[in-house]
Amino acid sequence: MRQRTLRVGMLGCGTVGSAVARLLDEHREEIARRAGCRLEIARVAVRDLDRPRAVPLGGDRFTTDPMEVVGDPDVDIVCELLGGVEPAGSLVLAAFDRGKPVVTANKELVSTRGRELFDASDAAGLDLYFEASVGGGIPLIRPIKESLTGERISRVIGIVNGTTNYVLTRMTEEGLPFADALAQAQRLGYAEADPSADVEGHDAAAKCAILASIAFNARVVAGDVFREGIRRVTSEDVEFARRLGYVIKLLAIAELDGERIAARVHPAMIPAAHPLAAVRDAFNAVFLEGPKIGELMFYGRGAGGDATATAVVGDLVSVARNLIAGTRGVGCTCFLERTIRPMDEMEGQYYILLRVEDRPGVLAEIASVFGHNRVSIKSVWQEGTGEDAQLVFVTHRAREGAFQRAVSELRNVKVVEEVRSILRVEAEE
Amino acid sequence: MRQRTLRVGMLGCGTVGSAVARLLDEHREEIARRAGCRLEIARVAVRDLDRPRAVPLGGDRFTTDPMEVVGDPDVDIVCELLGGVEPAGSLVLAAFDRGKPVVTANKELVSTRGRELFDASDAAGLDLYFEASVGGGIPLIRPIKESLTGERISRVIGIVNGTTNYVLTRMTEEGLPFADALAQAQRLGYAEADPSADVEGHDAAAKCAILASIAFNARVVAGDVFREGIRRVTSEDVEFARRLGYVIKLLAIAELDGERIAARVHPAMIPAAHPLAAVRDAFNAVFLEGPKIGELMFYGRGAGGDATATAVVGDLVSVARNLIAGTRGVGCTCFLERTIRPMDEMEGQYYILLRVEDRPGVLAEIASVFGHNRVSIKSVWQEGTGEDAQLVFVTHRAREGAFQRAVSELRNVKVVEEVRSILRVEAEE
Repeated sequence: MRQRTLRVGMLGCGTVGSAVARLLDEHREEIARRAGCRLEIARVAVRDLDRPRAVPLGGDRFTTDPMEVVGDPDVDIVCELLGGVEPAGSLVLAAFDRGKPVVTANKELVSTRGRELFDASDAAGLDLYFEASVGGGIPLIRPIKESLTGERISRVIGIVNGTTNYVLTRMTEEGLPFADALAQAQRLGYAEADPSADVEGHDAAAKCAILASIAFNARVVAGDVFREGIRRVTSEDVEFARRLGYVIKLLAIAELDGERIAARVHPAMIPAAHPLAAVRDAFNAVFLEGPKIGELMFYGRGAGGDATATAVVGDLVSVARNLIAGTRGVGCTCFLERTIRPMDEMEGQYYILLRVEDRPGVLAEIASVFGHNRVSIKSVWQEGTGEDAQLVFVTHRAREGAFQRAVSELRNVKVVEEVRSILRVEAEE
Repeated sequence: MRQRTLRVGMLGCGTVGSAVARLLDEHREEIARRAGCRLEIARVAVRDLDRPRAVPLGGDRFTTDPMEVVGDPDVDIVCELLGGVEPAGSLVLAAFDRGKPVVTANKELVSTRGRELFDASDAAGLDLYFEASVGGGIPLIRPIKESLTGERISRVIGIVNGTTNYVLTRMTEEGLPFADALAQAQRLGYAEADPSADVEGHDAAAKCAILASIAFNARVVAGDVFREGIRRVTSEDVEFARRLGYVIKLLAIAELDGERIAARVHPAMIPAAHPLAAVRDAFNAVFLEGPKIGELMFYGRGAGGDATATAVVGDLVSVARNLIAGTRGVGCTCFLERTIRPMDEMEGQYYILLRVEDRPGVLAEIASVFGHNRVSIKSVWQEGTGEDAQLVFVTHRAREGAFQRAVSELRNVKVVEEVRSILRVEAEE
């Protein structure tokens, strides 16, 4: 008996798309066993037909018109690997219109137009899978949506951007300044020529929104996520972190505060003994907390064509199984409406580095500014003397709003010559 | 419209069972949303009806006859939490006979009679889910079977027994001898009064067999797993490991060597910078390697009623969804027949500690024994002098068989007073 074949229409054939095509070809027997059918790439939309591609696909399958792929009656499943919000969004909707389920790796799309897309997928009764949108090859979406159904997750802390983690690792382990570490990352292909999407935290914020949405069962979009990049982290901060027993990481943090969600991306100091502190180089990890499971961490390569392609193929197999069984998988799990907690209302610890005049009474003056803003000091030490006198503070837990008011005041205090650095301190017991 | 209710028959109501009952009750709304139906515990089989239980279930649901639960026409899904091979095995088969899918947390059962049970589940077209059998609340089975369909996993290294990891952590961090660390684990409830299932590696071997089966798509049973416990690990070994830049862990290792599977559980030294080295106390972690994903790690609490219950509930929800859709999930994935590689043919590095006579020529004599057995030495140092003279060796990679022959010879060499310790060294670059 000839086994049934399901045909995939692929939108985009860059690093991930080529890896998907190779993987479907190389592992075709295993995949057929698991999917219950053969999976074949029938049509591929690309921007440039002439670009050479290392894929096991005949040239006749390629087109420059993505609608030709979506509309092809031979295409059973659409695999969207274009990136960016448009035309990806319209193409996904067009696929649902034509009764075709979709697998996507597109974090920008899911984190901005998720509601619209999931509403359309629910209305059409069709799968929309997106494992590859966060954490590359690390299984995250499925474990959170399916395995952890029995848990109410309270917090997610992720290192979800490999580029910035690579840069911070080089700064930490080799004492490099930010610019040198970034240049090294660019030479090695870990950072792009224009690194701003990574360095400014946009990429991490999109992933943070997706993680928050699935962890807390309510829609969070990228614009809801407070965001600060790593450009201002200095070698000095890295060294003071080390002395304080911390490591600096760019974290994506989503937490539940009552019924409100707080979501933010920023560099932070975390204790050197925390499992996330050991996540080095371009690796990613997502740490979950909940009352039943306690602590859970998923760790692996967060990017790269091959790793990401395994996530896409895992989704394709599930969608194919569902199609054949005439059913669909777990749909949108954003059952609830929750509001976003303003950043001002966050409560946390802070590290602040001030260049100050070196004379008696300075600490008292600064301490009084913290004090009347209700920010209490956990530790302080002086670093350098005379012209180079600096004070390194770590606060106890305080309101973000109160802390920022204290900082504004400090900028106008004569003895404070410069507010050199501010970093949040996270994951303390 | 009244929502459909699926009824669960639970076999066993100990720590995990009570936690499952509480969780199904507490989270009933979320669970109903995800399952597409209500989940209710209709019948529970227990050994002792009079034992008080903190569960939200009326006394009329309890029985001492498990067949009453399996045979109850009101029971749609059987949840097996008895542990042990029998009567659990017969009850699972009886459930399939009656057309009921099964969720189990039973590692002994799955790792010894897996083939028979999965054959029966396939023949009946019914789900057999077992997420809770390995790693407590850490999602492992589903990510490996479903998310990683697109990967050929080459190696699995797990810390899958919380008790022994707790003991080794105390030995490492406080310098306690084994007996004291074990006594502490017993006082804190991490180890049982009879700790042998944990300490001798039986528990880890069962989990190793399950992980090997799903990672390599071929049946591996507990008896296929080479096994050594941690009873002979000394404080001295822990200290020498530290000086060598290693940490001692009880590892469950499964690897693919060509078409053969090697599976083993034993204490081993791993580099202090390896992600598994940071897995402390009673935590578990499973580290996967593959050509596409590179390295992947799942980390969390490997035991405890609440954590394990989340895994059981995740499975119950999936099975319920499948029942309602009239389909089943991914069945047995042991598609292949593979043989087990004998331990003798393993290749690895070794640490060996010898008490020796303290005089010139001793090292030459010992080195020649290693040499003619084709074991080459990476490092050696002398520890103590005179009566207390010891030599600490680390070898380069060598065949297990060759190394063991060298050790047998060394036991008969006059200058060697005692072979004090042998440990494998793993996860070196």
